[in-house]
Amino acid sequence: MKTAIFPGSFDPITKGHEDIALRASRLFDNLIIAIGQNIDKKYMFSPEQRLSWLIKTFEKHPNIQCMLYEGLTVDFCKQHHINYIVRGLRTLADFENEQSIAHLNKQLYPEIETLFLLTDNRFSHISSSGVREIILHKGNVKDFIPEPIII
Amino acid sequence: MKTAIFPGSFDPITKGHEDIALRASRLFDNLIIAIGQNIDKKYMFSPEQRLSWLIKTFEKHPNIQCMLYEGLTVDFCKQHHINYIVRGLRTLADFENEQSIAHLNKQLYPEIETLFLLTDNRFSHISSSGVREIILHKGNVKDFIPEPIII
Amino acid sequence: MKTAIFPGSFDPITKGHEDIALRASRLFDNLIIAIGQNIDKKYMFSPEQRLSWLIKTFEKHPNIQCMLYEGLTVDFCKQHHINYIVRGLRTLADFENEQSIAHLNKQLYPEIETLFLLTDNRFSHISSSGVREIILHKGNVKDFIPEPIII
Amino acid sequence: MKTAIFPGSFDPITKGHEDIALRASRLFDNLIIAIGQNIDKKYMFSPEQRLSWLIKTFEKHPNIQCMLYEGLTVDFCKQHHINYIVRGLRTLADFENEQSIAHLNKQLYPEIETLFLLTDNRFSHISSSGVREIILHKGNVKDFIPEPIII
Amino acid sequence: MKTAIFPGSFDPITKGHEDIALRASRLFDNLIIAIGQNIDKKYMFSPEQRLSWLIKTFEKHPNIQCMLYEGLTVDFCKQHHINYIVRGLRTLADFENEQSIAHLNKQLYPEIETLFLLTDNRFSHISSSGVREIILHKGNVKDFIPEPIII
Amino acid sequence: MKTAIFPGSFDPITKGHEDIALRASRLFDNLIIAIGQNIDKKYMFSPEQRLSWLIKTFEKHPNIQCMLYEGLTVDFCKQHHINYIVRGLRTLADFENEQSIAHLNKQLYPEIETLFLLTDNRFSHISSSGVREIILHKGNVKDFIPEPIII
Repeated sequence: MKTAIFPGSFDPITKGHEDIALRASRLFDNLIIAIGQNIDKKYMFSPEQRLSWLIKTFEKHPNIQCMLYEGLTVDFCKQHHINYIVRGLRTLADFENEQSIAHLNKQLYPEIETLFLLTDNRFSHISSSGVREIILHKGNVKDFIPEPIII
Repeated sequence: MKTAIFPGSFDPITKGHEDIALRASRLFDNLIIAIGQNIDKKYMFSPEQRLSWLIKTFEKHPNIQCMLYEGLTVDFCKQHHINYIVRGLRTLADFENEQSIAHLNKQLYPEIETLFLLTDNRFSHISSSGVREIILHKGNVKDFIPEPIII
Repeated sequence: MKTAIFPGSFDPITKGHEDIALRASRLFDNLIIAIGQNIDKKYMFSPEQRLSWLIKTFEKHPNIQCMLYEGLTVDFCKQHHINYIVRGLRTLADFENEQSIAHLNKQLYPEIETLFLLTDNRFSHISSSGVREIILHKGNVKDFIPEPIII
Repeated sequence: MKTAIFPGSFDPITKGHEDIALRASRLFDNLIIAIGQNIDKKYMFSPEQRLSWLIKTFEKHPNIQCMLYEGLTVDFCKQHHINYIVRGLRTLADFENEQSIAHLNKQLYPEIETLFLLTDNRFSHISSSGVREIILHKGNVKDFIPEPIII
Repeated sequence: MKTAIFPGSFDPITKGHEDIALRASRLFDNLIIAIGQNIDKKYMFSPEQRLSWLIKTFEKHPNIQCMLYEGLTVDFCKQHHINYIVRGLRTLADFENEQSIAHLNKQLYPEIETLFLLTDNRFSHISSSGVREIILHKGNVKDFIPEPIII
Repeated sequence: MKTAIFPGSFDPITKGHEDIALRASRLFDNLIIAIGQNIDKKYMFSPEQRLSWLIKTFEKHPNIQCMLYEGLTVDFCKQHHINYIVRGLRTLADFENEQSIAHLNKQLYPEIETLFLLTDNRFSHISSSGVREIILHKGNVKDFIPEPIII
């Protein structure tokens, strides 16, 4: 049985994240969408709020589980016998950053494999930071986030 | 009559910004140089200080107006019937970021068109953040900012 | 009266080119879409074929003219008193290349200004070379080229 | 049963390709490594030579098959009921190119999913074109190609 | 006698920094590894701690000196008659940023020359920020930092 | 005594190449500017023509020698006990390509060190291919090539 993790901040989840998760869930037996917790980073939304949006978005998908975790992603993977990390690639800046992280993860835990899916064209301009910027300026973000969610 | 907006932080305005604005002002009947206000971001100079530098820089150009605005750039454009956003491109990192913003703006306000001008070679190494860094270290920035301004 | 040129190979014209041209034609009084001729480069389609597709695509747009030209783009601009070049930006690799060309053109003809429009999200994966590749392999390209054209 | 294709020119296969293929073969039930044939492109080695190197490299891996194909990759996938394309990402230039191809493929065949694996650090400087360049200059390429192969 | 400076934050020093410094020290008679101090930036480790790690890492290399400095790097260079700045290049994002800084430095002090060395493949995924992230999550960083150092 | 090689096609030499060579010649006791010969590649100018332009450009610089060579650059370096390769970086696309070549060279000849200098802002838009394009279209290239040369 193949299990993968799709880790992220999801602050908040976007339609791009939703699309990556659904496509990844077809490739693996189980997909865990997991919100990493970093005490040093500032988030707009609380972990509980972000988790509840994930749960709502994927509630009809029995092979997708959503959860919070602490510590390094690779340590979480070791503990839960997860060998695959899934990440979406949106921009070249993403790619370069993800490349460093994937190589670091492999050096920390050689059994891990990172798979990349491309963000669909329709969503490639949508980032969580863009969504937050619009929210800050009282704009309407409903076209950028999964349908079940209302912000 | 064609009006464009050149939005930015201008913290502070650089010779690169000045050059982009002058070139854009030849293409449009009116150019509005507008300082967006973002309560969450930290600036080195106050909005009033930044605005006064813009006004001083372009005081001899009757078709350029300088102002402050709040909220989303596209909302400002809708209210003022502006259909063109002008942006300068300096680096590839700029480009990728501007691309996301332009596509977001188009989705929020389909009438908007974003035009890009390339920063002149002579100024392509000059960013506001570089200028701020030099100021912080007590260096001399007069070669990097418009002539009428003294920092 | 403001005239711009949108130069290219258009081998063949794509939906991305069509979109850039239509958006540029709203900004200028006249837009000239011009196919440069380079004896050293190999094309899939003849200049006449490519021109006829341009003409067909834009026949309902009175302020768009299509033509062939020889020599440097800036020499053509000088002769026809054109001060604006319009280019579409699709990828970062495009951007870097266009940047060099725009700076070269400015050094050769300082009156010239190059404006960039971003390729719409829906078309950002479509390049002439991709279309040619599909044609070579007997694939169907009708979704990637302007509607009036049949290849 | 999940089958993926790893398409390429493999002119010649490198240690980077070998590594990507082995890692992909653990994720899928079957992996088809397939050499596309493009009559317009010039190759250093014949399709038969390239195929024989692939076969030799992977002969101990029962779930890896090697073959030649003609036409579009997505047409091959449709005929053989393959829903996954695997590609290795080595550089940002690769990424941008692969992004266009993956989006084109999805538009041509919406059932297809493209997965990307990162080339291992140890091999990220090794490209087929680099290997060909060394061969042309009579250099020794044995450190850059799979062990069973002698060029 | 040729002296170069290798400036940085070294928060903390990585194996990549160590490798760049050792290679640069073979090219110059003297190499100064210098920690710039920026009151506005937040560091994980104190300047004294970072300096002590530099000293420990290079204690067996008589032509390498380690120190702290304040103000602009080019002002430090002027005062100490240093004409060469050495920097390591790890990623394209690095490159673009370094390019702006090098051009700014040249405009501020035309005698300065900036030399770039490429981070070795084995270390190209290791950045100080990645190391800090692992430390924050209680991971083990010993493979990413110079051997004499224990964090 | 430190000797470096600045290898390239120089088809033709540009003001950017000239600037890189002069700056590199100040860092090394001897600088060899060497034109690699690749039977598979098509050049606009003959090796003899390109060499004569190099010689003319640098005739007043006694520590610069110009020559032709065949085979791999690292083999030439081994034979002539050269431990440094100098390259100019103009664009990010350059950087990524140079990175692969430098790492390949290091694997083929671990004693080699590749140093990079940034092309000066004034010349960063000038490439040999741009110059050739202008020549093909009968444009004037005198502003882009070293003063002693007339094409």
